[in-house]
Amino acid sequence: MATARLVLLVALVFGTSGGAWAAQKEDVAAPVIHALRPLAGSGGHLGRHGGVPCDSWRLAVEAYNMRDWRTVPASCEGYVGNYMLGGHYRRDSAVVVDEAVAYAEGLKLGGKGKEVWVFDIDETSLSNLPYYATHGFGYVTLLSPYNATSFNAYVLEGSAPVLPETQRLFRKLISLGVKPVFLTGRTEDQRAITVANLRRQGYSGWMKLVLKPVGFKASAIVYKSGERKKLQDAGYVIVGNIGDQWSDILGTPEGARTFKLPDPLYYIG
Amino acid sequence: MATARLVLLVALVFGTSGGAWAAQKEDVAAPVIHALRPLAGSGGHLGRHGGVPCDSWRLAVEAYNMRDWRTVPASCEGYVGNYMLGGHYRRDSAVVVDEAVAYAEGLKLGGKGKEVWVFDIDETSLSNLPYYATHGFGYVTLLSPYNATSFNAYVLEGSAPVLPETQRLFRKLISLGVKPVFLTGRTEDQRAITVANLRRQGYSGWMKLVLKPVGFKASAIVYKSGERKKLQDAGYVIVGNIGDQWSDILGTPEGARTFKLPDPLYYIG
Repeated sequence: MATARLVLLVALVFGTSGGAWAAQKEDVAAPVIHALRPLAGSGGHLGRHGGVPCDSWRLAVEAYNMRDWRTVPASCEGYVGNYMLGGHYRRDSAVVVDEAVAYAEGLKLGGKGKEVWVFDIDETSLSNLPYYATHGFGYVTLLSPYNATSFNAYVLEGSAPVLPETQRLFRKLISLGVKPVFLTGRTEDQRAITVANLRRQGYSGWMKLVLKPVGFKASAIVYKSGERKKLQDAGYVIVGNIGDQWSDILGTPEGARTFKLPDPLYYIG
Repeated sequence: MATARLVLLVALVFGTSGGAWAAQKEDVAAPVIHALRPLAGSGGHLGRHGGVPCDSWRLAVEAYNMRDWRTVPASCEGYVGNYMLGGHYRRDSAVVVDEAVAYAEGLKLGGKGKEVWVFDIDETSLSNLPYYATHGFGYVTLLSPYNATSFNAYVLEGSAPVLPETQRLFRKLISLGVKPVFLTGRTEDQRAITVANLRRQGYSGWMKLVLKPVGFKASAIVYKSGERKKLQDAGYVIVGNIGDQWSDILGTPEGARTFKLPDPLYYIG
């Protein structure tokens, strides 16, 4: 798939402001997306392109069968682009959030304001799709120095659009009296731009934003579970935890209930 | 979807002997399946039927976002039937097993024959699709007394067909020197018929078959992790663990690597 075509598409989907996605209804975006569908499709038997069947690969990623992968299979670049930019990704995310909201609504809170919910940021609270659509879906990896540089430049623009489904959960939790905590692999030196980006995209009222110390070397699981342990030791009860990576939601204490949002773009171990 | 139609289909897919599925190539089975596809489809946007989008629901099940569910959503019965009986389920299973085989081939064994791999049985080593296709995909649950009775009667026929992907892993492990252990929620009084069914379907060479004591009341996670602990305490190294339920692969010790096969039919906690 030509990158230029994806850039055009992403411009149409996101509009000129990052918030366009949030404001659009799926029905409005659908005709734009359909032009891409016949090329690769994101569903069922259409997903096979020579090598691995792309929909089965994506399922294996989401079910944590596929680990430590570095790139999207070369034959699945178009598939992943269609999945992410079409309605499929949004629909899958909405079902996860529906389940999270139902769980949250059923919680019995202690009345002392100690319940917290942990949110990852990238591909959970904010979307970096404009970056990936520009750089291609097939060969990006956060692990290569080159891409780390260009990705960080993108982060510093502070323009990542909201993931509307996650924001729906975020707001519901606040209305219920559960305090959101952001826990991100972004580093401490990105605090100001991250706060600005979150606020621009309509997030407010979080209890805490935890960023990784610059130079911190342990794995995401070690870092994130360590930070959750600190929350717990401080008397908070982690009633929920949502992220797009398994490393967001594995490692004691995980939180009473965890939710895995889809992410066929990259793997963080 | 009319049950009668599914019965006919399953007869065509499985043939008269339980082993027909194993012997058939996907290409051969495909035309039979296609007649069903337009009705509900198992892929992408075709999966929405009024309520929850069925493909998103299935993804949420596989990624452990959906827990403690009792039945397939009413509007997804046809979808699940198509998914299971069409090529989609087989294709998804094959990708999981491909990954498991690649992992197994990369193992460094200690040379003392202590490495074992845990296999669940139902919907992992053997398939109960003929049962579910007869009883409907939408409203069956193993938790109701009625269905437990009819399901047990089916088990006692000893006719469950092999899941060929899993058997491929099973045989690969034996060739590598890793010992398979069956660990099943089936009860001890079903040992003879279970052994007979496994042998009829081409399984041989397992190290151990662990069945649940009759009347054992704890959860599947408690039972299965307890049995894995016994293996570990006896000096075995659980290098892998594969099942169709999250309760097969959660709970310490899980095994060095776990694999979740698809199962949108039922949930065991």
